[in-house]
Amino acid sequence: MSGRLPFREWVASLQERVEKALARHLPSAETVPARLHRAMRYSCLDGGKRARPLLAFAAGELCAAPAEKLEIVSCALEMIHAYSLVHDDLPCMDNDVLRRGRPTCHVEFGEATALLAGDALQTRAFELVAGENLGAPVVQIEMLRCLARASGSLGMAGGQAIDLDAVGRSLDLPELERMHAMKTGALIRAAIRLGALCGEPLSEPSKEALDRFGQRVGLLFQVVDDILDCTASTAALGKTAGKDSAADKPTCVGRMGLERAREFAGRLREQALESLQGFGERAGRLVEVTDFIARREF
Amino acid sequence: MSGRLPFREWVASLQERVEKALARHLPSAETVPARLHRAMRYSCLDGGKRARPLLAFAAGELCAAPAEKLEIVSCALEMIHAYSLVHDDLPCMDNDVLRRGRPTCHVEFGEATALLAGDALQTRAFELVAGENLGAPVVQIEMLRCLARASGSLGMAGGQAIDLDAVGRSLDLPELERMHAMKTGALIRAAIRLGALCGEPLSEPSKEALDRFGQRVGLLFQVVDDILDCTASTAALGKTAGKDSAADKPTCVGRMGLERAREFAGRLREQALESLQGFGERAGRLVEVTDFIARREF
Repeated sequence: MSGRLPFREWVASLQERVEKALARHLPSAETVPARLHRAMRYSCLDGGKRARPLLAFAAGELCAAPAEKLEIVSCALEMIHAYSLVHDDLPCMDNDVLRRGRPTCHVEFGEATALLAGDALQTRAFELVAGENLGAPVVQIEMLRCLARASGSLGMAGGQAIDLDAVGRSLDLPELERMHAMKTGALIRAAIRLGALCGEPLSEPSKEALDRFGQRVGLLFQVVDDILDCTASTAALGKTAGKDSAADKPTCVGRMGLERAREFAGRLREQALESLQGFGERAGRLVEVTDFIARREF
Repeated sequence: MSGRLPFREWVASLQERVEKALARHLPSAETVPARLHRAMRYSCLDGGKRARPLLAFAAGELCAAPAEKLEIVSCALEMIHAYSLVHDDLPCMDNDVLRRGRPTCHVEFGEATALLAGDALQTRAFELVAGENLGAPVVQIEMLRCLARASGSLGMAGGQAIDLDAVGRSLDLPELERMHAMKTGALIRAAIRLGALCGEPLSEPSKEALDRFGQRVGLLFQVVDDILDCTASTAALGKTAGKDSAADKPTCVGRMGLERAREFAGRLREQALESLQGFGERAGRLVEVTDFIARREF
């Protein structure tokens, strides 16, 4: 039924659904220690494009996955993503004060609470995927491995570390792609894989095609991020614009210039869509989400 | 066979075993990003009493658990413990410079790398328990839930948050016990439970008795920590002595004085040992580890 909703409405309905599910799957703001739980809720609720949940739900449509399961993996993905933002914004990292149009977590709650909130969000994500409502343990274990690999030292956290080490240094394009693939791409790929794991098993060739799609769309997401960091306003982004170039961070735009970065994004979009061709109409939402990511302005 | 080793030798052999397993289960120091992986290895290897692994192995003896499985859960427990120490030592938390007789992780590698190393150690812990060598997914899921509950916002991280909020405030004894039960006790209990989950299933009454033991020994561990913070030297502890009272943190010694804290520790030891009575000789190692924890001087 949701398959028939126009894209914008589908996005809005999922964003609302994920928001409600996150509110339910996080400890209440009154649960002791209340300050920590308020910081966790502050960092997850009321915002974000929910790009990873959109991809998980869209991938779930390929495999007739039930929405209840997609909701849970979406919450776990958002918690991992939120934890990484909270820690990334800390003074010892990017030292940023604005996120999703509001003060960052450590500005609002202090550094120590923000540190612990990030830590506990990561834990809660794994706890959710290990929870009772997700179905067969053998599939949950596969999901947990996928989520851990994507977010650990060979995935997201490792990408952050490479990013740190690269400040002021020039990365060549393969190095830059590798960093992006880890820092942002890994969790995007995991979102797609986790969405698919919520439904009927895919054949090996289908899995591989979907993972090729995930690779391309993950890189696309980051290249568009780099472009927006240069071209969009702080107000539009809800986070500090221009900070990557100001901090002399390696970005695609810095490496290849704005025009070639746009061309690169266009190629990645085409490659992503090509990987979906074998799926036919079942991949309709994935096509739409790809265009949403390619054309987003925030 | 290890059942016949004298206690000191058993401890030494397990410490060596866990050290080697950790070295194997962490990415090598050369794996990109190398600095991050060096920081992760620095924080886990070459030190610590390995109290949680000792408890896991001792609980494993109750259930004829294979050493290969106990080794894996021990590594996961040590990674969670190490991540909490790395983050706890950061300037925005305890701002400590000495740990296990060496500079803390952020002193050695910088704050940003220490933050990411802690993050990635947590992830790796969950990845290990979801790994291929641990056996039945349905048991792994139970282990993962146990580990997540023990370390998240209602366990270890929550206890840290209560500790933070309590600086300079006076907690009454039930509040103090609750904080300790979360901050240190939860992961100690999890160690015992995870050890038991590596072996043959226990009956419900046995599970409950073992968990009562875990509660008492977890609290005992922290009360002894509080006592040592007051009475032992920095050299003996390998970490800054006297820092809790200097920071005006709530401790048992601060609450009840040194003598009554010692009596309290004695009572907790007795209660812990009472919970083991039904197990007979199979609990031999647990009895020894309890005495080791009660009498430790570092």
